Amino acid sequence: MTQFGVLKESIVELAQTAAFEAMENSSTTESTFDHLVVGVQNPDEFVGQGHLSTLLADQLGIVPAGATRVESGPSSGSSAFESAFAMVAAGMADLVLVVGVEKMSQVDRNTASTILAKMLSYENEIRYGATPAALAALMTRRYMHDYGLTRNELSLIPVKAHRNGAKNPLAHFQKEVSVEKVSTSRMVADPLRLYDCSATSDGAASLVIASDKAVRDHGLSDSAIKVLGVGHGTDYLAVQHRSSLTSMNATRVAAQNAFTMAGITSKEVDVCEIHDAFSILELVNMEDLGFVKRGKAINAVKDGITEVSGKKPINPSGGLKARGHPTGGTGVAQIRDIVQQLRGQAPKGLQVENPRIGLTHNIGGFGNNMVVALFSNG
Amino acid sequence: MTQFGVLKESIVELAQTAAFEAMENSSTTESTFDHLVVGVQNPDEFVGQGHLSTLLADQLGIVPAGATRVESGPSSGSSAFESAFAMVAAGMADLVLVVGVEKMSQVDRNTASTILAKMLSYENEIRYGATPAALAALMTRRYMHDYGLTRNELSLIPVKAHRNGAKNPLAHFQKEVSVEKVSTSRMVADPLRLYDCSATSDGAASLVIASDKAVRDHGLSDSAIKVLGVGHGTDYLAVQHRSSLTSMNATRVAAQNAFTMAGITSKEVDVCEIHDAFSILELVNMEDLGFVKRGKAINAVKDGITEVSGKKPINPSGGLKARGHPTGGTGVAQIRDIVQQLRGQAPKGLQVENPRIGLTHNIGGFGNNMVVALFSNG
Repeated sequence: MTQFGVLKESIVELAQTAAFEAMENSSTTESTFDHLVVGVQNPDEFVGQGHLSTLLADQLGIVPAGATRVESGPSSGSSAFESAFAMVAAGMADLVLVVGVEKMSQVDRNTASTILAKMLSYENEIRYGATPAALAALMTRRYMHDYGLTRNELSLIPVKAHRNGAKNPLAHFQKEVSVEKVSTSRMVADPLRLYDCSATSDGAASLVIASDKAVRDHGLSDSAIKVLGVGHGTDYLAVQHRSSLTSMNATRVAAQNAFTMAGITSKEVDVCEIHDAFSILELVNMEDLGFVKRGKAINAVKDGITEVSGKKPINPSGGLKARGHPTGGTGVAQIRDIVQQLRGQAPKGLQVENPRIGLTHNIGGFGNNMVVALFSNG
Repeated sequence: MTQFGVLKESIVELAQTAAFEAMENSSTTESTFDHLVVGVQNPDEFVGQGHLSTLLADQLGIVPAGATRVESGPSSGSSAFESAFAMVAAGMADLVLVVGVEKMSQVDRNTASTILAKMLSYENEIRYGATPAALAALMTRRYMHDYGLTRNELSLIPVKAHRNGAKNPLAHFQKEVSVEKVSTSRMVADPLRLYDCSATSDGAASLVIASDKAVRDHGLSDSAIKVLGVGHGTDYLAVQHRSSLTSMNATRVAAQNAFTMAGITSKEVDVCEIHDAFSILELVNMEDLGFVKRGKAINAVKDGITEVSGKKPINPSGGLKARGHPTGGTGVAQIRDIVQQLRGQAPKGLQVENPRIGLTHNIGGFGNNMVVALFSNG
């Protein structure tokens, strides 16, 4: 993956940097790829260039491979991975390149917000001025009301994210923050403050998805990470139509599908990268993924269970908040970071001790299009 | 599929009309879908609404199914079909809904052209003012030079398209045209005239992709159409970087992959829907698909071989030119029309006699992202 942040590189240059690194690390630089799947949310409006599937097949040097762009909002990267996995699992391809990328800083912040708001419901949300942050604030208030979560407890989430991000050389934000700094930072959407919200970032990440045969042919049997399961679930587009404000059914469905395919339970997960675009999401996700009881996630945080050294390390990379959130790039970066963990190659101070199974969880829309994936080094 | 044309219905209403018909025809209205794949080129800019995968999962009533949008320019519909097929072939899904849709008439014609031009190469084409029609004109001139094709011969292509379209009640244009009318119509990009170019349309089409098990469970063994093969290929984004101006390598690669998967040859194809966005493309495609020798396609047209009653019927629906070309909808409509042909349910005067194998061919970008698929009723 590339550095995440506000970068000078074009969307093509970002994709190239990530993809060429993925090819080099998998000894596939000279190989024939069957397909390219690009996860990107909205290059037409963020950078004024469309048709990224062919553009990147061309600029990554893998023509005449088939090429497809996949989009599901901010879970586009994970959906791209899922499509690539399906092609290989179906026997339609042996070697598929996945690129997740977004270049968001070419437009000003208001334009970026308008572009991102197009993923919400016009009928129920956009025309009343709702934004993703406003909806996350609604969820936070309700969670505080139902479970007694306090402002300073919530701040522990970005504090952990930035503590990890400070050790991740590719993170957008590499500086620790204190509970006080988070709790008194600029208000964005009451009760959410600046440090509760992920920023818009530029960045790309890439994966090579290979069949068993391609893994053997490339002599990668020792380093290849196995896909155990992938699950995908949706919920109603508008938050007001859903059954709960403090739990996301799409996560539960995606997780159940992934765990069923893998034949394992949430207890067996050793490390995970989950979608913490807003502080409250990390707590809600932990509960929906079955790691902790409803309303109790903050106890696990306070007990250090979600730290790199804890029993259930969550977002050792710094997560969306510190690593950054170039929307189409995020899902692929999550998988790349879990692959690093499972290979024992995480940055200094971020390596979890001997993880065997890793999980990624990526949110599309505002909590309505989730992909959960499970990986192992066994 | 819906009527194609300039329609009053919203993009969601179009998708609903097509999808509900597909569900009804396959007895899956009450069934649980595992996934929705939406093929659409650019709803964010054409209608100002993004995140169509979740929006449609919601509005089609199939939440919590996984949902993904797939985009590869004007071949988005076929790429969506390919992704759905991969999920079923991989055993990850038993029942997948595919919707191809575009609503292009909400913006004015100049805005539509600007939106569509984003699929070309900025570096090599857009900044010099190139449009898809200009590139097709370049190809036509070269083909005329190399093979002696005349203006009035070229006009036979739209004449056949409109003759078929006149019998298709869902076609955008249902009126016959003469060679003289085509050859003297308004100039668009010399030598291409108005009737050489497909219009922008609104419209949607939908498919239900089912595993063998789901076909049996729904009692559809007699009506289900079998997918024999799918192939996908790319070429360099900019026309100037390709090896030929009168042949498209991406078609040849996609066709070869599809024929190899199916284990058949082009000789065995009984009916096809191919991508004739510009008149010249029908001739070039016929050659690249292996139906006729290089430079000889017009002879087959003149001999009536490509007519509904001919030996190799091409675009009995009227093709992109007469049926219409709502970009993301086209590939799915092609497959839907071939399914109708293979079931013997084509409109009066358009049914090919007892076809056994059908082919679809869909172009993305300007000739750089092709999907070819093969189907049979056997």
